[in-house]
Amino acid sequence: MTGPQPCDLLVTGGALVTIDRGWNLYDPGYLAVKDGVIVGVGPAAQAGEWTAGRTLDAAGCLVMPGLVNTHTHLAMAAFRGALEDVENRLIQYIFPLEKALVTPDLVYRASRYALAEVALSGTTTFADMYYFEEEVARAAAEAGLRGLVGQTIVDFPAPDTQAPHGGLARGLALLDRWKDHPLITPVLAPHAPYTVDPGVLRTVAAESAARGLPWMMHVAETLPETRRFTASHGSVVKYLAAEGALGPGLVGAHLIYTDQADVELLKAHDVAVAHCPSANAKSGRPIAPIHRYLDAGLRVGLATDGPLSGNGLDLWGVVNWYPKLQKVLTGQRDKFTARDALRQATLGGAEVLGLGGVTGSLEVGKRADFLLADATAFNVQPVYDWYATAVYALRPQNVRHVVVDGRLVVEAGRMTGFDEAEVKADMVAIATRCRQTIAGFAP
Amino acid sequence: MTGPQPCDLLVTGGALVTIDRGWNLYDPGYLAVKDGVIVGVGPAAQAGEWTAGRTLDAAGCLVMPGLVNTHTHLAMAAFRGALEDVENRLIQYIFPLEKALVTPDLVYRASRYALAEVALSGTTTFADMYYFEEEVARAAAEAGLRGLVGQTIVDFPAPDTQAPHGGLARGLALLDRWKDHPLITPVLAPHAPYTVDPGVLRTVAAESAARGLPWMMHVAETLPETRRFTASHGSVVKYLAAEGALGPGLVGAHLIYTDQADVELLKAHDVAVAHCPSANAKSGRPIAPIHRYLDAGLRVGLATDGPLSGNGLDLWGVVNWYPKLQKVLTGQRDKFTARDALRQATLGGAEVLGLGGVTGSLEVGKRADFLLADATAFNVQPVYDWYATAVYALRPQNVRHVVVDGRLVVEAGRMTGFDEAEVKADMVAIATRCRQTIAGFAP
Repeated sequence: MTGPQPCDLLVTGGALVTIDRGWNLYDPGYLAVKDGVIVGVGPAAQAGEWTAGRTLDAAGCLVMPGLVNTHTHLAMAAFRGALEDVENRLIQYIFPLEKALVTPDLVYRASRYALAEVALSGTTTFADMYYFEEEVARAAAEAGLRGLVGQTIVDFPAPDTQAPHGGLARGLALLDRWKDHPLITPVLAPHAPYTVDPGVLRTVAAESAARGLPWMMHVAETLPETRRFTASHGSVVKYLAAEGALGPGLVGAHLIYTDQADVELLKAHDVAVAHCPSANAKSGRPIAPIHRYLDAGLRVGLATDGPLSGNGLDLWGVVNWYPKLQKVLTGQRDKFTARDALRQATLGGAEVLGLGGVTGSLEVGKRADFLLADATAFNVQPVYDWYATAVYALRPQNVRHVVVDGRLVVEAGRMTGFDEAEVKADMVAIATRCRQTIAGFAP
Repeated sequence: MTGPQPCDLLVTGGALVTIDRGWNLYDPGYLAVKDGVIVGVGPAAQAGEWTAGRTLDAAGCLVMPGLVNTHTHLAMAAFRGALEDVENRLIQYIFPLEKALVTPDLVYRASRYALAEVALSGTTTFADMYYFEEEVARAAAEAGLRGLVGQTIVDFPAPDTQAPHGGLARGLALLDRWKDHPLITPVLAPHAPYTVDPGVLRTVAAESAARGLPWMMHVAETLPETRRFTASHGSVVKYLAAEGALGPGLVGAHLIYTDQADVELLKAHDVAVAHCPSANAKSGRPIAPIHRYLDAGLRVGLATDGPLSGNGLDLWGVVNWYPKLQKVLTGQRDKFTARDALRQATLGGAEVLGLGGVTGSLEVGKRADFLLADATAFNVQPVYDWYATAVYALRPQNVRHVVVDGRLVVEAGRMTGFDEAEVKADMVAIATRCRQTIAGFAP
């Protein structure tokens, strides 16, 4: 008989929700990590099979896969809470604000700031779309988070390129530069069907497919977009399908305005959905018909959208409300269970981003991306059902430790990857410049 | 010229949002409290007019009125997260669970536990409906919170009385016993139009009016209720009006299923609305037409509902989603502003509960009920608009200190009124009994 096996990190005690195929839940459980990979998971009684360089005592905690945020714009944290409650916000206010302020330095510093909120609330994987995306990659690598960084492509001059769809060349360079990073997946991110030429979309799809990568785009998000393509092609999705730009590999953010024929097209092209219920509601848009996407077997993940839209990067607020909104939309209170919602906030999101084999569940062979949440807090107990607790009771405040790729990126509620005070001071300086710019927007 | 005036507590620095009639906001501001009453409020530069026994430094904080939760069932924290995602939950599962478990001791201990979540998240005033409501009053007085405690009345045997509508006699005794308490307002709380005889409702209204008190009831919350009274009278509200039971003084919780004629009846009887968007959504119910109630000039407050329904007592999650849901319902993203939403979560709620002259805003002469939230946290900055920050960015984790009636009920994130460990241990014991009872509900 052999003795205990060595590992780097052993998490023992606590309730361990795996989100594996058999919905295994070990209470108490253990998790063993070696070289960033989960090498053991099971009942705590079996933890003795391992000796560890470091042990995390999870007594009183919920241990679960880290959350996966399938769509955001991290650097827009710089503008959070500005210019609220107005019509036509994006084109009238946000684009000019970005034109005036968005530099590589702002993107790096604001993304780094935003990543603190992401990590501290227990999100281990994110998908970003913005300008100067190499700066987002740099910030994420520094914070130690896993992410898709998507270079924005638009047909008009953008903060990071004067050339129409100059983001394509920038994006292809990004794909080359970051292709071998263990945490960062660089991708192309055309902005939307109404801001990018269909020929460019076909190029994006082809270049992405050649590299085995997904690509991301806002789809059927706004009413003007929907009216335009409904007039020409019956719907936004039908327009994309007709133009040969519905895949392969598309992660469509929002997908609010769709009909049943669209759902079938989305399924035929294996489009994945990044659902942003909080941001959509704040913009006064209808509840996206996620129930139809699920019925059709589409991959659906959850997302905060950018912190200007949401207005935060707290995915707990999204997973809490996503099932409620689908219950409202369908009137079926017994559907959209807490268990299914938690899967969508973790493994489901990973599958949307093409990372289902890498992260999203606690299983041997997967990268070690997980969180420990204090389950003894007043807002958490009593616990009768860990899925209901995670979905409806947990708040960011309950997250204590966060591990990505086997490394503690949040320890006892603090970022380990950078100096919190410095990152906060950066945002104060950015906000001062932003305030001055907004003051110039006098009506 | 006289020197500085003495006061008990002086809060200086920080951004002070008053929610007064002129929407005054002092950044930095000060607040002076004497004998539980606000005696000074204004720009920080004027704080020198006061000398204080104790000073709270609010630098980096948002100082604002405490939140007002207009409808909950505190003791149901004992059942939070149990029996989720099922049809007909109340009658099939919850009533039997309560019959088996609800004792004065459980109500006291579970309410005390729930009040910690209430206070720690910055709610200073609550309105409760349950059984053995004198135990809720006792727990609230101990925690130091302001509250309406509403004795439940139903036509069938209840956990606290075997007699049909025996809750009426219990409630009248409660009204006598607690009538002079500085924080507790005892009220009558018939359960619903479908569980209480209309004659009893008229008695409740008359007895309440004679004492100048509001009374509370679930109204137009469920579909069976709505179908029954729509068949007989056109709607639940029309039934109550026809029976002479729509007022005066009624605080109607939920009010989901109403038409325009109902709105006019509600207005004619000055019915106030306790809006529970999170609990309603979780039950798969439509979004209540709050926009119509506001257009008609009704008083509307926000509420979590019980922690079994919501599933928490965190009012931030409600004030965050209430305007979004009304934007979804109406398609108007420029309406239901953050400023109006914050007023509804504070002064608006106080007005619903008949406490608009006592609490809900930071004005000279009002009781000192307020919170200090850390505005330097990653999830809060940058701040361009304090109302948007409070409504969309703040989370319970940001609340540091909470003052009720001039007394610190939460200090640096800890309850001052009782031993947190003891209160948590009580809930562990309650949950064990509850788990055993649920195990007996074999399908």
